[in-house]
Amino acid sequence: MRALRKTAAGPGAELREIPVREPGEGEVLVRVHAASICGTDLHIYEWNDWAQRRIRIPMTFGHEVAGTVEAVGPEVHHVRPGAFVAAETHIACGHCSTCRTGRAHICRNLRILGVDTDGAFAEYVVVPADNAWIVGEGIHPDHASIMEPFGNAVHAAFGTEGGEDLLTNPVAVIGCGPIGLFSVAIARALGAWKVFAIEPNEERRTLAGKMGADLLVDPTSEDPVETVLRETDGNGAEVVLEMSGNARAIDQGTRMLARGGRMSLLGLPNGPVTLDLNDQVIFKEAKILGITGREMFRTWQQTTTLLSTGRVDVAPVITHRFPLERFEEAFEVVASGRAAKVIMFPGGAGAQGASERERASVAPDRGEEG
Amino acid sequence: MRALRKTAAGPGAELREIPVREPGEGEVLVRVHAASICGTDLHIYEWNDWAQRRIRIPMTFGHEVAGTVEAVGPEVHHVRPGAFVAAETHIACGHCSTCRTGRAHICRNLRILGVDTDGAFAEYVVVPADNAWIVGEGIHPDHASIMEPFGNAVHAAFGTEGGEDLLTNPVAVIGCGPIGLFSVAIARALGAWKVFAIEPNEERRTLAGKMGADLLVDPTSEDPVETVLRETDGNGAEVVLEMSGNARAIDQGTRMLARGGRMSLLGLPNGPVTLDLNDQVIFKEAKILGITGREMFRTWQQTTTLLSTGRVDVAPVITHRFPLERFEEAFEVVASGRAAKVIMFPGGAGAQGASERERASVAPDRGEEG
Amino acid sequence: MRALRKTAAGPGAELREIPVREPGEGEVLVRVHAASICGTDLHIYEWNDWAQRRIRIPMTFGHEVAGTVEAVGPEVHHVRPGAFVAAETHIACGHCSTCRTGRAHICRNLRILGVDTDGAFAEYVVVPADNAWIVGEGIHPDHASIMEPFGNAVHAAFGTEGGEDLLTNPVAVIGCGPIGLFSVAIARALGAWKVFAIEPNEERRTLAGKMGADLLVDPTSEDPVETVLRETDGNGAEVVLEMSGNARAIDQGTRMLARGGRMSLLGLPNGPVTLDLNDQVIFKEAKILGITGREMFRTWQQTTTLLSTGRVDVAPVITHRFPLERFEEAFEVVASGRAAKVIMFPGGAGAQGASERERASVAPDRGEEG
Amino acid sequence: MRALRKTAAGPGAELREIPVREPGEGEVLVRVHAASICGTDLHIYEWNDWAQRRIRIPMTFGHEVAGTVEAVGPEVHHVRPGAFVAAETHIACGHCSTCRTGRAHICRNLRILGVDTDGAFAEYVVVPADNAWIVGEGIHPDHASIMEPFGNAVHAAFGTEGGEDLLTNPVAVIGCGPIGLFSVAIARALGAWKVFAIEPNEERRTLAGKMGADLLVDPTSEDPVETVLRETDGNGAEVVLEMSGNARAIDQGTRMLARGGRMSLLGLPNGPVTLDLNDQVIFKEAKILGITGREMFRTWQQTTTLLSTGRVDVAPVITHRFPLERFEEAFEVVASGRAAKVIMFPGGAGAQGASERERASVAPDRGEEG
Repeated sequence: MRALRKTAAGPGAELREIPVREPGEGEVLVRVHAASICGTDLHIYEWNDWAQRRIRIPMTFGHEVAGTVEAVGPEVHHVRPGAFVAAETHIACGHCSTCRTGRAHICRNLRILGVDTDGAFAEYVVVPADNAWIVGEGIHPDHASIMEPFGNAVHAAFGTEGGEDLLTNPVAVIGCGPIGLFSVAIARALGAWKVFAIEPNEERRTLAGKMGADLLVDPTSEDPVETVLRETDGNGAEVVLEMSGNARAIDQGTRMLARGGRMSLLGLPNGPVTLDLNDQVIFKEAKILGITGREMFRTWQQTTTLLSTGRVDVAPVITHRFPLERFEEAFEVVASGRAAKVIMFPGGAGAQGASERERASVAPDRGEEG
Repeated sequence: MRALRKTAAGPGAELREIPVREPGEGEVLVRVHAASICGTDLHIYEWNDWAQRRIRIPMTFGHEVAGTVEAVGPEVHHVRPGAFVAAETHIACGHCSTCRTGRAHICRNLRILGVDTDGAFAEYVVVPADNAWIVGEGIHPDHASIMEPFGNAVHAAFGTEGGEDLLTNPVAVIGCGPIGLFSVAIARALGAWKVFAIEPNEERRTLAGKMGADLLVDPTSEDPVETVLRETDGNGAEVVLEMSGNARAIDQGTRMLARGGRMSLLGLPNGPVTLDLNDQVIFKEAKILGITGREMFRTWQQTTTLLSTGRVDVAPVITHRFPLERFEEAFEVVASGRAAKVIMFPGGAGAQGASERERASVAPDRGEEG
Repeated sequence: MRALRKTAAGPGAELREIPVREPGEGEVLVRVHAASICGTDLHIYEWNDWAQRRIRIPMTFGHEVAGTVEAVGPEVHHVRPGAFVAAETHIACGHCSTCRTGRAHICRNLRILGVDTDGAFAEYVVVPADNAWIVGEGIHPDHASIMEPFGNAVHAAFGTEGGEDLLTNPVAVIGCGPIGLFSVAIARALGAWKVFAIEPNEERRTLAGKMGADLLVDPTSEDPVETVLRETDGNGAEVVLEMSGNARAIDQGTRMLARGGRMSLLGLPNGPVTLDLNDQVIFKEAKILGITGREMFRTWQQTTTLLSTGRVDVAPVITHRFPLERFEEAFEVVASGRAAKVIMFPGGAGAQGASERERASVAPDRGEEG
Repeated sequence: MRALRKTAAGPGAELREIPVREPGEGEVLVRVHAASICGTDLHIYEWNDWAQRRIRIPMTFGHEVAGTVEAVGPEVHHVRPGAFVAAETHIACGHCSTCRTGRAHICRNLRILGVDTDGAFAEYVVVPADNAWIVGEGIHPDHASIMEPFGNAVHAAFGTEGGEDLLTNPVAVIGCGPIGLFSVAIARALGAWKVFAIEPNEERRTLAGKMGADLLVDPTSEDPVETVLRETDGNGAEVVLEMSGNARAIDQGTRMLARGGRMSLLGLPNGPVTLDLNDQVIFKEAKILGITGREMFRTWQQTTTLLSTGRVDVAPVITHRFPLERFEEAFEVVASGRAAKVIMFPGGAGAQGASERERASVAPDRGEEG
């Protein structure tokens, strides 16, 4: 099969013919329909510091994926060939104390598909059967690969303490890459009152408006902290969803947070971050929650509901489609800042489906983790 | 009456004769039995940067206080002269949105007794009737002034999201000033499994042992992060109660926290704090909770129960007693590092009650907020 | 002033001229703009068993009210004459243990406006200043009296344990009187996935559809338990909002509840209710939550947001308007089953505002508590 | 091997020689050290209505079990022969929506060891590897079979909404069979303030005192509702743990519950139960929580901590030990009302270990589910 491989310790990648791996015990083989590009994939492609430390070459990368189960390994009972599935990319051990207490997504022995194992920018990918989520009716197959980053946004919106603070409250979303754009729509669908979208790139702000943001804030032309405070009678946002990974924006996030408010941190900063804990966390009794991955599999159920019922329409976020062989163009557009979500189709099937709105040209998504 | 007054913009204070103020509408006049010294009082006494910015002289300071209601102002219906009360020191407006939603302790218009108003190092103090908590049976009057800092520890232990994570779980207390020492005993009484007390001062560590700590950790001779991880099978502490306000210790706190764990921040750092959000907060899904004051008045009920039933014995923490006129000695001992909790008795009544164990000599409590 | 008085121990009421009471300490005098009729008012009017035990005549009844502050008593600082307010009808003591722990709506010494004190079917009513909620922009004055029963529905929807279980989950509303109708719209606005409205009266079911119900269920022609299970893949509704007070419907509610689901009980049954605790509560780990009144004042903030932002439009529920002097017609229409919410206007101002949709004729609301 | 078999549709059981079953895929074979008798086992032994409907003969019963792993089937990776394990008795499907959202103990396709499958009153038992909990140091092997019913009590104490309401609050335990007795000690260890033990049998009340109850209440000689209210200043118990399954006691439980309190229902009533929902649930905003089984496997971690650290000592509850061949005596003593927990030892090893306190003679445990 053809697979996009990281074969050398440097920028770029190579499309190679490699054998299809047999699914082992508890695994399924998936024929890839769609695989979308995450910020992490760009890091691997560009071979940044993190990638140099983490990735062992040669390997196939890519982890946002949906496709059809082609074969199942031994001891697989509940997933059948022919099922159309999306992949949870956190591969948990199942026996550490976090796994045994229902928090497999922060498993102590966590491995990530397409980072620690061979990934999905290929015609076929092998994933654990437990990680294959059957995509129900009402979700377009071309969109199913984005259930994984969409799930990130759902999990960040709910947070780790409930999520009822979204209901009727002002919510600020910082950073409108794909996960930020999803978050805007999710907050809206889950009953938030006033959704602020804070993003320097104009095209992304426009997309945020399409996704339902009530106020679009350009942090390069106005102080986002002042804007949020002014528009909330000085109280601030009850919930801040931090999707930028920008250290300055994280600090601003704490400043626009209401007394007693909650901030979900999902964007990954490049280094340590300095915060004014006294005034912005302690005296305000702020709750700062780290967010990673998706709850397995509560988040997938929620994602399914939001997408299949039309409560959220992700189409505006999908700006580009390519057949896998045009991966260089795909990564170029991601890196260039003219894209939101870019999907590659190894079989080519969905590559021609670009809709009107997918011609929008937006800036790149950095600092996000898929 | 005699009152300890801050009369000049510099170190020290002065014992002066001033008129007793009449209680106004909704206020009560309290004849002070005991008033204990908080780290904040030392800041005011020593006239540090914070005090220079915040305190308007002349004023009487002191806020940890208990005494007998002498008179009540108009519109006071539920507190009667003769009642023995301790004071909640957060004076809330009652009508801002946080007050109206049951979170008066983080009131937008908060004033602090003895900081923003005349305080309790005096023979009499005026407090709002709503802030007077009737001290029930089973709590020694000499100990009632410490209900306020004890309540800080109770509130930090419960956190703002429940407190059930204390139950059967390892808990690390960082910093063993009085509030840290209280926290050790509270965590124990509330069902924590293994309580770590992390404190460089040997005498304070000894006190932490008396308060029920399972493991005493000297962060100057061993790495507290390594110790906590080793003693918890590598999982870390499910709950970290940060009472030191030391920037390095806060960072260590995040590192010793379990995946999915909760850290209550109560100690006030001197400046901004730099954290490794990626590995210690986001990937671990840590919950970082700012903590200030006490829930009004759930925390006071909890405090009353813990103290009046003997579940926690605070006597070891009370190391010194002085009549008010010996305030210079009192502040000297607090500053010197030979004390845990120091109580002053304006009427002199409790000043001779020093028990055997109160002769212990321990290091000062810095960075804590009362 | 004119006031609708219960003057004799029997059915009916009398419009009388009585003196306007002066507002006492902490009270405000409100010139009534609108006062709507609750099921409880009908009980008082019809003088049922409950009313005979509870009501002491003579008295003015009515409690769902909005109007303009005309005068304030001593010690009222935050409400000014001229303010347009709606009334929280639970008058709490402020000093019992539930009040002191932020749960004033279940105060041990609770009194109810218009039940235990003179009420609002009059030109003027006196309420505690703390119970006067300033009605913000965006809420039509004619609709402001229904903020109180709407708040019941909001509180039931959130429940007492959070409310995040509404998000993306199926919700069944049993009983579509005014509070049930509000609940349908609230569940929808707060992100529920599929809202079932279960109601025997056809006109009310039609209104439920207008309020956003996804499925309308007539329990007289189909088994609502079967319908809910069938439409949720056999899982049941994650949340059931019980608004009927009908014993059989309560039992059915437990049977349509999902494993681990939550049921809010708001409708008041006429007598004891028999439940299958084993199979419907214990083995399913159901959560059965009693709901009364509104959280003071978190629920009012949420109500304000939902109404003022247009997330919920209550107009379809307001079926009739009358000037106060036509109270007999008003109660007749409530009793007859041709109304949802009926509003009386003592000043007459809003009585002519009946919109097109308010001509709908629907069945009466029984068993609900305002 | 020898196994206690239900071979006929009537009272009693038979000790038979049957082949040892090979562990299948994902299963382990356990050599039974200890198997204790649950109320459910007595139902099966006595062949009551429930048993007649549920049990398919012939079968081996018994489910509270601990022993040594003798062999493992294919695809078992994390449990090794030689491990000493206790068994979680809820066998979950792993793929229904409750399983996929971390609530496997209320799995839609749940099977129970020793009820739906061959059980543990035998020399060997086969259990799924996922259900084998490795018993850590600090728990006596003779006591490990009671981790399962002890876990019931832990889960009931925590409830399904947190458990922080135990902390510093009065707790009433209704019914002092083994699970009730465990609950008393657990509530105490988890920071409850005042633990009421309500039980008609004098010997069980005495045991409840040994387990740490603060007040022992005989409901046949005093009204338990009055007692609880009187001893809590009229407020009631913040938490009620219902372990009796007695319909009258359940009703009383709602009446002794504080406003806003929580009641965990674990005891299984014989039929439908009639409750005063208006005054005892709705107006009080009570939370009634069904409880079954144990959270998999958070409850097992909590159980391990409570037992291994000595926070709870279960020895007083273990009143009798028998070798398996004396099963008739064992069931007789359970049925007679002279026992709390009775353990059988198929290998005979622990049967002679009866301690001084295990000679206590107490009444039987009915209505509980193991």
